[in-house]
Amino acid sequence: MSVEFWFEFASTYSYPAAMRVERAARAQGVAVVWKAFLLGPIFKAQGWNDSPFNLQPAKGRYMWRDLERVCDEIGLPLVRPSQFPRNGLLAARVACAFTEAAWLPDFVRAIYAANFAEDRDIGVPAVVEACLGQAGQAPGPILAAAESVETKECLRARTQEAERIGIFGAPSFVAGGELFWGNDRLDAALREARGARR
Amino acid sequence: MSVEFWFEFASTYSYPAAMRVERAARAQGVAVVWKAFLLGPIFKAQGWNDSPFNLQPAKGRYMWRDLERVCDEIGLPLVRPSQFPRNGLLAARVACAFTEAAWLPDFVRAIYAANFAEDRDIGVPAVVEACLGQAGQAPGPILAAAESVETKECLRARTQEAERIGIFGAPSFVAGGELFWGNDRLDAALREARGARR
Repeated sequence: MSVEFWFEFASTYSYPAAMRVERAARAQGVAVVWKAFLLGPIFKAQGWNDSPFNLQPAKGRYMWRDLERVCDEIGLPLVRPSQFPRNGLLAARVACAFTEAAWLPDFVRAIYAANFAEDRDIGVPAVVEACLGQAGQAPGPILAAAESVETKECLRARTQEAERIGIFGAPSFVAGGELFWGNDRLDAALREARGARR
Repeated sequence: MSVEFWFEFASTYSYPAAMRVERAARAQGVAVVWKAFLLGPIFKAQGWNDSPFNLQPAKGRYMWRDLERVCDEIGLPLVRPSQFPRNGLLAARVACAFTEAAWLPDFVRAIYAANFAEDRDIGVPAVVEACLGQAGQAPGPILAAAESVETKECLRARTQEAERIGIFGAPSFVAGGELFWGNDRLDAALREARGARR
């Protein structure tokens, strides 16, 4: 039994989802498949050159307040990033190249914490290196692999896969052939993963 | 203790919210203030001339499937309307003119059932009349009041109020000075209503 967790490092509601998905899934006996992708190309295909939370100021104002409440409720620290959205490209390449690495979940959480709890610029290689360090990894060979042609192609293909299966925002979950959108749908996705006897 | 329920008759997720808000609020000792408004002018101010669910096909496809699941979960019938969005102007005028009428909640639910469970055109006066009948009311004087200058102005002012307090979608809830967006936030809004000792 597994759930695909589709996330984008710049996405605000992906933060609480990323921080709790593994524990919540484990409690239900469900494995997490970590699927980093980029929202930028998907937004661009809609004609958007920025986050909808910036393009729609009322929605953006609401989101930051709602995210505060959501994080409060699960005891997650939140510091509104001084820059939004941040560039998660390098981190996404790492996550795409090392999808199945045992340290990947720790790295993902370190990046989200850097962006949304510590207001650090995850677009800066030194911050990605520090997050790899927090996940117990030497950054050199990992960053080299992240910048390879194969990895760039891997992330492009991943993002195209997201679009093909109907993903239009993050976080999204796929379980039992069903798509679920939003941090609010984690529990429903886990129920689906358990119900679909595969 | 009260919660404002801001709804638009064409809005899909307003359907499950409208059908359950009164019972859920009553169970918590919270009164519902029914606030019909129009999303059209708010979308137009964003430069949209249609529902975002039509403008963004992937999001629209997802929404219809998700709404099916949401309705299933609470045992609510759903028939995808053959026209979307439907014109809720007349019904909204009725709901604005008779905000505090004892029969208003029954009328609101009848309109939502017509639109989302019976695939009837709520833009047609005869359907609004039938819904008034279901709420135990003679339609004549009510529709006359709904078409008065005062009522038209009431709904315009209501929609401007929505925009002023930061509403950008429906359903929305206001409790304890906090805004909550979406059917998924009903419980959070009710908690806020109970926590805010006013």
